[in-house]
Amino acid sequence: MNHFMDIAVKEALKGVKLKHGGPFGAVIVKNNKIISSSHNLVIKNNDPTAHAEINAIRKACKVLNSYHLTDCMLFTTCEPCPMCFSAILWAHIKHIYYGCTRFDAELIGFDDKFIYDIIKEENKSKKILLEQLNRNECFEVFKKWKENNNLIY
Amino acid sequence: MNHFMDIAVKEALKGVKLKHGGPFGAVIVKNNKIISSSHNLVIKNNDPTAHAEINAIRKACKVLNSYHLTDCMLFTTCEPCPMCFSAILWAHIKHIYYGCTRFDAELIGFDDKFIYDIIKEENKSKKILLEQLNRNECFEVFKKWKENNNLIY
Repeated sequence: MNHFMDIAVKEALKGVKLKHGGPFGAVIVKNNKIISSSHNLVIKNNDPTAHAEINAIRKACKVLNSYHLTDCMLFTTCEPCPMCFSAILWAHIKHIYYGCTRFDAELIGFDDKFIYDIIKEENKSKKILLEQLNRNECFEVFKKWKENNNLIY
Repeated sequence: MNHFMDIAVKEALKGVKLKHGGPFGAVIVKNNKIISSSHNLVIKNNDPTAHAEINAIRKACKVLNSYHLTDCMLFTTCEPCPMCFSAILWAHIKHIYYGCTRFDAELIGFDDKFIYDIIKEENKSKKILLEQLNRNECFEVFKKWKENNNLIY
């Protein structure tokens, strides 16, 4: 078994035993060295964003003192949900190794595939309603930012 | 202008002035009362996940002592990126009001649309590589969780 995935599995098991949240673990690696690891902490922290990958990204950013994790790899026991997948892209991580899939997660009751399908517009769920409001006033802030900054994400 | 969107715009402006991150603000409302508000804190916190919506969700969950924000509405100055949109679904928020769009965000240099397109498989980006590893060992943890818990997300 891959060494880093083994650590991710051990993280996931720890989370299950401690009832911290869902059965997911993640590890971030740079130059063959572990920078951070975490498991799902949704229940423990009362935080729906506290997925293993998000926690590991936040920890790694603290360690490396950067909001970009360029040249890092992520090992996760399950295909990242769209929240985590997007966080991985925002963090500039370019290589993901995953164990289970969104279909496996669905088998044990998780919404990963459901959310992917809504984003891919394969599921026109009535569960969520989006309405546009005050676009002009909001766009004024974009203009102000553009005038004053040259930050790149 | 909508009162809650006005607060979200003021949050976004505050973030721009303080150089905390991108020009985005968000407000969470329950029963016509503001539960939390935030702006983008990516730069200030060195945290690529610290988008306005994610911060507002995490704060509201602390206030309400729950990882579900059922019956809350979210006002955000820009259409949530896929990370935030998924976080909103994980949090069980059912109603989103947004100002600008992913296309507006692209105009000022943000990757929201790019990430949507990758998830929707409309962009086969070489920027990110996904590889499956050790699915069986990872699935063992899913089975253990399923045997021991009845948690619902």
